[in-house]
Amino acid sequence: MAATHSALCKRGYAELTMQDIADESELSKSALHYHFDGKHDLLVSFLEHLLDRFEERIAAPDGEDPAERLHSLVDTMVTPPEPRSDGFQTALLEIQAQAPHDEDYRERLERFDEAFVSRLRSLVAAGVEDGTFRADVDPDEAASLLATYLKGVQMRHVAAGHSLERSAAVIHRHIDERLVAGETTVVTLE
Amino acid sequence: MAATHSALCKRGYAELTMQDIADESELSKSALHYHFDGKHDLLVSFLEHLLDRFEERIAAPDGEDPAERLHSLVDTMVTPPEPRSDGFQTALLEIQAQAPHDEDYRERLERFDEAFVSRLRSLVAAGVEDGTFRADVDPDEAASLLATYLKGVQMRHVAAGHSLERSAAVIHRHIDERLVAGETTVVTLE
Repeated sequence: MAATHSALCKRGYAELTMQDIADESELSKSALHYHFDGKHDLLVSFLEHLLDRFEERIAAPDGEDPAERLHSLVDTMVTPPEPRSDGFQTALLEIQAQAPHDEDYRERLERFDEAFVSRLRSLVAAGVEDGTFRADVDPDEAASLLATYLKGVQMRHVAAGHSLERSAAVIHRHIDERLVAGETTVVTLE
Repeated sequence: MAATHSALCKRGYAELTMQDIADESELSKSALHYHFDGKHDLLVSFLEHLLDRFEERIAAPDGEDPAERLHSLVDTMVTPPEPRSDGFQTALLEIQAQAPHDEDYRERLERFDEAFVSRLRSLVAAGVEDGTFRADVDPDEAASLLATYLKGVQMRHVAAGHSLERSAAVIHRHIDERLVAGETTVVTLE
């Protein structure tokens, strides 16, 4: 899995070969083929490995209350885990672009999506429950907006060079101004 | 350009060849090569052609006021132009995933991004100006949130099968509830 990670960082997805992965590991190409049917099979296992790590990373975000935990979770998504590698983020995007052609990739990518949305939803719901977030915040809507926005952050960064930090700042302010219950309140005029 | 569109719908980006494009057109492969150095050169021209059409599509969204025009613009982005083709959306995503490796693609994709954000920003600014949108809405922030969200919509649709309609509904409600000035007002408690 570490060798696959290194090889993806260096070669990207499209041109990746089993030889590239073997070169990053202590295994021969034939030993790799003993364990995996080929590049596709190996990458499906790699996605499952990433999914396990991703679920650990999002399981318990730091913070004293749901708002702080939500800000931490956003930072976790915007700042990829070390070693930070634009090459790796790009390779992941290439794999995502293959999803419509590849049911095995798609199934794993859907699990990433569902795990993340469900984590967001339960954090927002906990915050509405304990009064950290405004009572009129809908956890489904808020989670969907945040998850979709954060997908867009990666995409605009990779495809159009848009700053991760600027994108993160916008969503942090959105959380503070639109979700967090605070010194402002909404009054309906009759 | 029409032949390139058809070929991308059928074959996707990664496996596309000049022969595929020739097969969709009335030109021979050698005639295509007379006009374009190869697949990369042809696709750069195709992106420029799409950019021209995109700028026309977003130039004057329907609607009586800035809020209606903003809703129309969102619909334009969520609903691809006819003939609607998931194959084509996927091919575009594949091209976007190549952007970090390819300065020519990246430069054109940045122009799409800038054109769209700038259109959103001026619509929001017009709405703040004429009172359609709340006075505390920041056009830069709002445009960045909408543009990034809409990138994420495409990505979640292609990679994780998420419904375009549900994603669109969330952002339409966001516009109505968070941007549009209406019967609610925010009061700061002392």
